[in-house]
Amino acid sequence: MTPAPIPNDTIGLLEGLLSTRAIRRYTDEPIPPDALRTIMFAATRAPSGSNRQPFRFIVLTDGPNAVAAKALIGEAARAAWNHKRTTDRYDEGSGAQAATPKARMARTMQAYVDNFEQAPVLVLPCLVRYRDPTPFEGASVFPACQNLLLAARALGYGGVLTGWHFAVQHELHTLLGVPDTVFIAATITLGRPAGAHGPVRRRPLPELVFEERWDTPAPWAIDPPGTQFTAAGPPR
Amino acid sequence: MTPAPIPNDTIGLLEGLLSTRAIRRYTDEPIPPDALRTIMFAATRAPSGSNRQPFRFIVLTDGPNAVAAKALIGEAARAAWNHKRTTDRYDEGSGAQAATPKARMARTMQAYVDNFEQAPVLVLPCLVRYRDPTPFEGASVFPACQNLLLAARALGYGGVLTGWHFAVQHELHTLLGVPDTVFIAATITLGRPAGAHGPVRRRPLPELVFEERWDTPAPWAIDPPGTQFTAAGPPR
Repeated sequence: MTPAPIPNDTIGLLEGLLSTRAIRRYTDEPIPPDALRTIMFAATRAPSGSNRQPFRFIVLTDGPNAVAAKALIGEAARAAWNHKRTTDRYDEGSGAQAATPKARMARTMQAYVDNFEQAPVLVLPCLVRYRDPTPFEGASVFPACQNLLLAARALGYGGVLTGWHFAVQHELHTLLGVPDTVFIAATITLGRPAGAHGPVRRRPLPELVFEERWDTPAPWAIDPPGTQFTAAGPPR
Repeated sequence: MTPAPIPNDTIGLLEGLLSTRAIRRYTDEPIPPDALRTIMFAATRAPSGSNRQPFRFIVLTDGPNAVAAKALIGEAARAAWNHKRTTDRYDEGSGAQAATPKARMARTMQAYVDNFEQAPVLVLPCLVRYRDPTPFEGASVFPACQNLLLAARALGYGGVLTGWHFAVQHELHTLLGVPDTVFIAATITLGRPAGAHGPVRRRPLPELVFEERWDTPAPWAIDPPGTQFTAAGPPR
């Protein structure tokens, strides 16, 4: 197989950083191997401590292990979401009205877990540990996950990083032959967005960016004109 | 202060992902507030679990706390690097010859820690914990760190994510008024590169990207023509 060259960019770097949304609804379109190659090549260009490159990616599309892994995680996701839907009170308050952001988010999440097995691509980013776990080890795998999502965006795809596999990680280790010393760091689904990318919503910048001291907003930390905001965490 | 608009892109998204190097040598040029604003705005557009946005960034340039924090971390970095230089045997084998990659890396690291206090900008990305630490919590702060480094690249700057603050994290909490429940996740230095960005070196893709099963290279995981490689970890 001769690799296709890396495609030319159609999206700028800042543009991509500011408008890559978590994409949870996909068309049925598969992601062709050349695109997967570009996405994974970009993922692995991320930095890691001492350039040890402890990140590994198990890509699951439509083989027997892919079908089994998607079913395992899908079932776990539905159970976890049902629990979260209640504990985070998605159906109470404004969640009882169909047109609110809270109700919309609940519908999106419900559809995501209900259709988990139909996601075109499932990627399990893994971390090969060379020492006991530290709170800092994520610095050597999550930047690569972000590169992965941004590269998908660059090619017109989209995805979301989740932790839905946590409840079935041991079953996944067995199914996929993952050594015990390896940490499955996340569950990423990818596909062609049924919706669209666009500006993301966050808290106002002065709540997130300080200068000289904790909780002291940097005077220059001003959101660009037109920025839309959202509160942090599950909708209230 | 009226914010400048986000600048137009001069670098493509894939191009940026594939060629953002760890930059450890900087010119004396400061990073102006408008550029810092764009960099931090991009950082905070990163995803986090349930969009809780638990990331915070303490930006330190030339104020009294900045000077003190840089001195604290600089001293810790020099002590840690001196230790690492010996334990990782940077001066043995090919490291004894000035022209080898190993000797070059040792010189770069030595210069980095020797000049740590002169880095134009120091950013401490923090994670506000809402539950006990988990191995997954880094998924809500390190993607934002990667966005930060990529946004710096988009504006012609560069930086590196390190853990040099680990030995002095308690002193930093005190100096900067960081609450005990907050985790200082990394040390990032930023500035105008004295060198240049460009293609990064990693292990061959088949060692990092699997399909269907652990350690089974995806058949399409082929590096683009001209890719240059490096082994993982400290030079041997």
